[in-house]
Amino acid sequence: MKTPSSLDFLTETLRRLPGVGPKSAQRIAYHLMQHDRDGAALLGRALTQAVERVRHCNLCNTFTENPVCETCLDSERDPTLLCVVETPGDQLMIEQTLTYKGLYFVLMGRLSPLDGIGPKDIHLDKLILRAGDGVVTEVVLATNFTNEGEATAHYISETMKARGLKVSRLARGVPVGGELEYVDAGTIARAMLDRRAT
Amino acid sequence: MKTPSSLDFLTETLRRLPGVGPKSAQRIAYHLMQHDRDGAALLGRALTQAVERVRHCNLCNTFTENPVCETCLDSERDPTLLCVVETPGDQLMIEQTLTYKGLYFVLMGRLSPLDGIGPKDIHLDKLILRAGDGVVTEVVLATNFTNEGEATAHYISETMKARGLKVSRLARGVPVGGELEYVDAGTIARAMLDRRAT
Ligand SMILES: [Zn+2]
Ligand SMILES: [Zn+2]
Repeated sequence: MKTPSSLDFLTETLRRLPGVGPKSAQRIAYHLMQHDRDGAALLGRALTQAVERVRHCNLCNTFTENPVCETCLDSERDPTLLCVVETPGDQLMIEQTLTYKGLYFVLMGRLSPLDGIGPKDIHLDKLILRAGDGVVTEVVLATNFTNEGEATAHYISETMKARGLKVSRLARGVPVGGELEYVDAGTIARAMLDRRAT
Repeated sequence: MKTPSSLDFLTETLRRLPGVGPKSAQRIAYHLMQHDRDGAALLGRALTQAVERVRHCNLCNTFTENPVCETCLDSERDPTLLCVVETPGDQLMIEQTLTYKGLYFVLMGRLSPLDGIGPKDIHLDKLILRAGDGVVTEVVLATNFTNEGEATAHYISETMKARGLKVSRLARGVPVGGELEYVDAGTIARAMLDRRAT
């Protein structure tokens, strides 16, 4: 008794998706073949198309189908400011605040020596080139406030300062609407140290 | 700020996979574009190929790339016995026991009125045709011993008996190696009712 080889191939290949083990790969393959062939065909096309078309912006490194993305081409933005984020999702969050009108650099990751993710993997060379274009004057570090995000910010900060650029970091502190009683002590300690004159 | 349309298309289409919500669709899409383009290309090809090639066996309804599957073409098997299972996986389990040498019919599901799964969805017409080929004399019901599997077995049993076929069902009882103390009361009750002379 043999499974058809194209079904075996599908099941094996589904395992390359993050979080899909052998059992669920088979479950998904059977589901698609039996109940959603249209979905399978569409997904097949979507994957092939995305691999062909999606590339990284020459300037900011985010995903785009063009050499340079729309954000980088937007002449309304302040080209002296360069905000460094970990992912396109983080960039979107900042855009939604409407508080920033400069440009971006998307690392597509964060430094994580334990996982073997070093400066090369977060495209530091590309960032150095980008920030050193002679127009950028301030690099705003908006990596996450996790251990890895902080380490990444620190590393980039040193690199940028060595090149004579002004570097800033999003402020840490008590979240808007946060009640002290429910905020962790580390955050309060940081807010106390970073307290500002009113 | 716009995501490239081929990436949006990929993210949307990934949501057609069972168990993949909007967040994980995006996570998977980013992962593939950034870390596993080869995997994405392969999976794209595997899906397209499977949709083109995988079909249902004309006789037993399992997945195959040919009009009739290898099992159905195996002349060593007893063509008077037809074992009805829910899935190809169940068929494989039975094959591994080496206790059955007849043929199969794979329902590709089970009756589940609450989910809108009726006789048509488990290919009952095809089963009736298959079992009525004049060669099959006994239909062995090997659907699961769940509520839905039992209901499915009952329904098929009535249909087959009405056509003059002998119908049997896998025996229920205490599992091999089972200690009574740890077996549920329903199973023991069933084993008691189905007790056999020794
Ligand atoms: Zn860009
Ligand atoms: Zn067959």
